[in-house]
Amino acid sequence: MNTLAHWGPALQFIVELLATAAFALSGIMKASRKGLDAVGVCVVGFLAAFGGGTLRDLLLDQRPFFWVRHVDVLWGVLALCVLAMAFMRQSHFQLTEKAIQWPDALGLGLFTAAGVSQALALELPGMVAVIMGVITGVFGGVLRDIVCNEIPAAFSDHRPYAVCALVGGWTDVGLSTLGVPGWVAMGACVAVTAGMRGLALWQDWQLPAWRP
Amino acid sequence: MNTLAHWGPALQFIVELLATAAFALSGIMKASRKGLDAVGVCVVGFLAAFGGGTLRDLLLDQRPFFWVRHVDVLWGVLALCVLAMAFMRQSHFQLTEKAIQWPDALGLGLFTAAGVSQALALELPGMVAVIMGVITGVFGGVLRDIVCNEIPAAFSDHRPYAVCALVGGWTDVGLSTLGVPGWVAMGACVAVTAGMRGLALWQDWQLPAWRP
Amino acid sequence: MNTLAHWGPALQFIVELLATAAFALSGIMKASRKGLDAVGVCVVGFLAAFGGGTLRDLLLDQRPFFWVRHVDVLWGVLALCVLAMAFMRQSHFQLTEKAIQWPDALGLGLFTAAGVSQALALELPGMVAVIMGVITGVFGGVLRDIVCNEIPAAFSDHRPYAVCALVGGWTDVGLSTLGVPGWVAMGACVAVTAGMRGLALWQDWQLPAWRP
Repeated sequence: MNTLAHWGPALQFIVELLATAAFALSGIMKASRKGLDAVGVCVVGFLAAFGGGTLRDLLLDQRPFFWVRHVDVLWGVLALCVLAMAFMRQSHFQLTEKAIQWPDALGLGLFTAAGVSQALALELPGMVAVIMGVITGVFGGVLRDIVCNEIPAAFSDHRPYAVCALVGGWTDVGLSTLGVPGWVAMGACVAVTAGMRGLALWQDWQLPAWRP
Repeated sequence: MNTLAHWGPALQFIVELLATAAFALSGIMKASRKGLDAVGVCVVGFLAAFGGGTLRDLLLDQRPFFWVRHVDVLWGVLALCVLAMAFMRQSHFQLTEKAIQWPDALGLGLFTAAGVSQALALELPGMVAVIMGVITGVFGGVLRDIVCNEIPAAFSDHRPYAVCALVGGWTDVGLSTLGVPGWVAMGACVAVTAGMRGLALWQDWQLPAWRP
Repeated sequence: MNTLAHWGPALQFIVELLATAAFALSGIMKASRKGLDAVGVCVVGFLAAFGGGTLRDLLLDQRPFFWVRHVDVLWGVLALCVLAMAFMRQSHFQLTEKAIQWPDALGLGLFTAAGVSQALALELPGMVAVIMGVITGVFGGVLRDIVCNEIPAAFSDHRPYAVCALVGGWTDVGLSTLGVPGWVAMGACVAVTAGMRGLALWQDWQLPAWRP
């Protein structure tokens, strides 16, 4: 109990930091592949990184936002954008679909855990907490794809993505209901979500086609 | 007066419930026609159903949201999504433009009435109340079309849609200003909006072209 | 000090009014070029005019919105939409890329200044104030382009746009930190942003390509 109160905020911070970097990278890669200019790449990087969490905080009426409380993170993401662009320019690094998918899977798990735990801390119902986790995890990428003028990949590529966040979110809610310490539930959520997404990519799982 | 205080919340609830189901169905149909996967169909169904009302509540700073207060409705829409997909798969049901339009017209009327009455209850000016009604009625569909990567049909198909919500909304505001009981004004708003939309579809009305 | 307290709100109002008209016009022009119907032209005009400021106010949790406080402005923009459509119909006025760019440049400067000064008044960090300025200036146009189903021009046309708002925003924050009166800092922000954008259009500046 004491440990949780002590470690909770620090853990939450580290989780959001890692997820932010992972998603910013996925946004930078997508925008560069769509041929956006340097400004567009940075904006899409920011949107992918902060979009899901900001939307969650708007819906939960939580302020100040993560990036207002920790302005350093904004500078960090900006530095990441510049470094990534410089690196890609230097090395003629060919960005493949696969290269985008791995940071994305990690970010999905981390953000889902952050979203669920924030909603549970506000004592919202389990279903709403899971939805907040899915929104936090998925909508950064959804906004990224909408700005890039594509149907969001999460909804159209027939691979499990939001489903992983859903399963991970319910794991978190279930464990929390059983009285498991918060950091264990969060860790399980990250592991289940990112692990299931990784498995899906590795084994090439397809969502069951619902129409012949 | 007493009756209104008694019936107001229940009426508001039933109106939002019916409109939610109608819009979810329109979202499910649109997403399935665009070839989205099962997850995408559910998300677009949720977005069409709750998008307009949630945007209105965000703008009016009203919380908790409809779907946080009534978590059962979330389960209901989820069940509707699953049932609709199962039914469409079983029956090889061909989804036509027309099949989408009728639940959409009903939902438009019901949501517009809900939006206007909520803004009037907050004593906002008539013009703002009408805009809130139009946003509640139209923006679920707008978000649905944006996620499906189309120009929103409401703004581009040269048929009266938002215009119906506008006329219905002013009917509601006008009657309320005249001191008519709230449920009569709401009923008139639903009837005018959905009726005018139905007439427009039946008679194939076109918005006057504003450019040669 | 006394002068600022006296003139600040009036200046803020005039700045937002001019920017609103400029952006509404840019939205009307874009929507008409995309072949949207009369309703779509009005909605995109409203979205371009009020989208950036409303998003800023949502993020800063500032209410009532500009357009709820000043309902007259809504009627004004509606009149502007109708007049612009009538004028374009009468005169067979050919809308060119260039015709859109000038009101857009002015609106960008005015909105950026309004956004930065509102965030500074809430004593937010400089970086956040600049981001709010950029959001206020750029996201009306971004929403306009998303609804018109295009990749936002601000992120993809390889011309300085958001960069101008960024430079203007930092000018405002820098001058304010130095203790310069608020209206001077705002004026400098408008001049730098709109001037830099104008120069960029006139001299045909390109953003440095970051990829060979």
